[in-house]
Amino acid sequence: MIAGLLIDISGVLHVGDEPIIGSAEAVRRLRRAGYLLRFVTNTSRLCRAGVIERLERLQMPVAPEEVITAPLAGRKWLEARGLRPHLLIHPDLAADFRDMECGNPDAVFLGDAGEYFDYPALNRAFRLLMDGAPLVAVARNRYFQEADGLSLDMGAFVTALEYAAGVEAVIIGKPSAGFFESALADMDLEASQVLMVGDDAEADVLGAIAAGLQGALVRTGKYRPGDEERLENTTATVFRNLEELSKSLKKS
Amino acid sequence: MIAGLLIDISGVLHVGDEPIIGSAEAVRRLRRAGYLLRFVTNTSRLCRAGVIERLERLQMPVAPEEVITAPLAGRKWLEARGLRPHLLIHPDLAADFRDMECGNPDAVFLGDAGEYFDYPALNRAFRLLMDGAPLVAVARNRYFQEADGLSLDMGAFVTALEYAAGVEAVIIGKPSAGFFESALADMDLEASQVLMVGDDAEADVLGAIAAGLQGALVRTGKYRPGDEERLENTTATVFRNLEELSKSLKKS
Repeated sequence: MIAGLLIDISGVLHVGDEPIIGSAEAVRRLRRAGYLLRFVTNTSRLCRAGVIERLERLQMPVAPEEVITAPLAGRKWLEARGLRPHLLIHPDLAADFRDMECGNPDAVFLGDAGEYFDYPALNRAFRLLMDGAPLVAVARNRYFQEADGLSLDMGAFVTALEYAAGVEAVIIGKPSAGFFESALADMDLEASQVLMVGDDAEADVLGAIAAGLQGALVRTGKYRPGDEERLENTTATVFRNLEELSKSLKKS
Repeated sequence: MIAGLLIDISGVLHVGDEPIIGSAEAVRRLRRAGYLLRFVTNTSRLCRAGVIERLERLQMPVAPEEVITAPLAGRKWLEARGLRPHLLIHPDLAADFRDMECGNPDAVFLGDAGEYFDYPALNRAFRLLMDGAPLVAVARNRYFQEADGLSLDMGAFVTALEYAAGVEAVIIGKPSAGFFESALADMDLEASQVLMVGDDAEADVLGAIAAGLQGALVRTGKYRPGDEERLENTTATVFRNLEELSKSLKKS
């Protein structure tokens, strides 16, 4: 039944600079078996070329067209509507937007700009929103882990702008239905033919199932014991890691 | 019945650098009639000395103990609990906090820092909140008018921190009940003996009535035709300006 897989990158293929043992071989096994693969990520502090480069360093070569990042999905969303965004993004993501028309903006695009969030940029976004520009954001995450502690994530700034301007953001990344729909369109497959594999029970697995895909949780990356309880009474499957999943799949 | 008045400063005594005609004389008339006066403001871009200086320039001399600013009410709130705040405030307000113990902070105090809101200061606040520090804010305003357009106000940043840390802020300024209670304690009067006069139907008049005070709207400052409709079915009174109100009051 399964013809393609969406594989979350961080926490399934690697954790930081460390590959997850068996994942490289699992990807090769899935390729040999003929599955259509897409590697997906919500990251908004790395452009697509950066994602590919990191996977190459980890001995997991992927083709550019196999990588779907949430910021690039956002760019597609904006381009499909002919919108020119005011960008609130991290400089490491800028390459993905360098050749996009951004003068005289009529939309706001917000990624995890981190320390680059400042008042002038936020106020410019606010004024555009008050003039009717749509607010497009990668995700609504509240915080993330840094070496020295938890840090404010982009969801705080999405919420700030929503409150001030009285608007609701369009969320582009996982677990939004739009993210999965756009990946399916790219693969030219039906939702029921695609399995999403991730280490996040909510954003990856439940998000995918809500969009009609199949969903599998792997016990690597950010997985914590007990996470599978959130998948009870769903069709989700659970595997030790991508290696175990790759061996269990039988191509129909 | 009325023994004291709380008089909102901006929009009742002056608009920007212009005094409102008749207000200086009205204040003198209220003093002569023996009313206890307090001049109140939510402003958080001006220290108390700055407020007094501005009123002096406008020929409306006031004593320091007659001025109640929301940031100073916040300082009182923190001191009453022995808390040391991490300050997110505008430099023009710093004088009111200069001699306060702020090392090794265990609370977050947020005013309208404007362009001084930045990621490092917000992230430090977030981490303190995650460690259980209370979030104390002057107000929840969404935006304010600047010469070149509307601008993001502190409410956006209050909401951002509340969302990220999963907490609820204590709001110190109008229209919070705490603000009016603290002013009553300062005047040593009962709520029913005090009339709040302001140009903002919500924050000044409805806020005061909700706290048990009497409330009067003046049609100056930010008042816009139709604002009094929000006061229907309340005990609020409406006057053309502070001058008309001062003439109508009969000291019991």
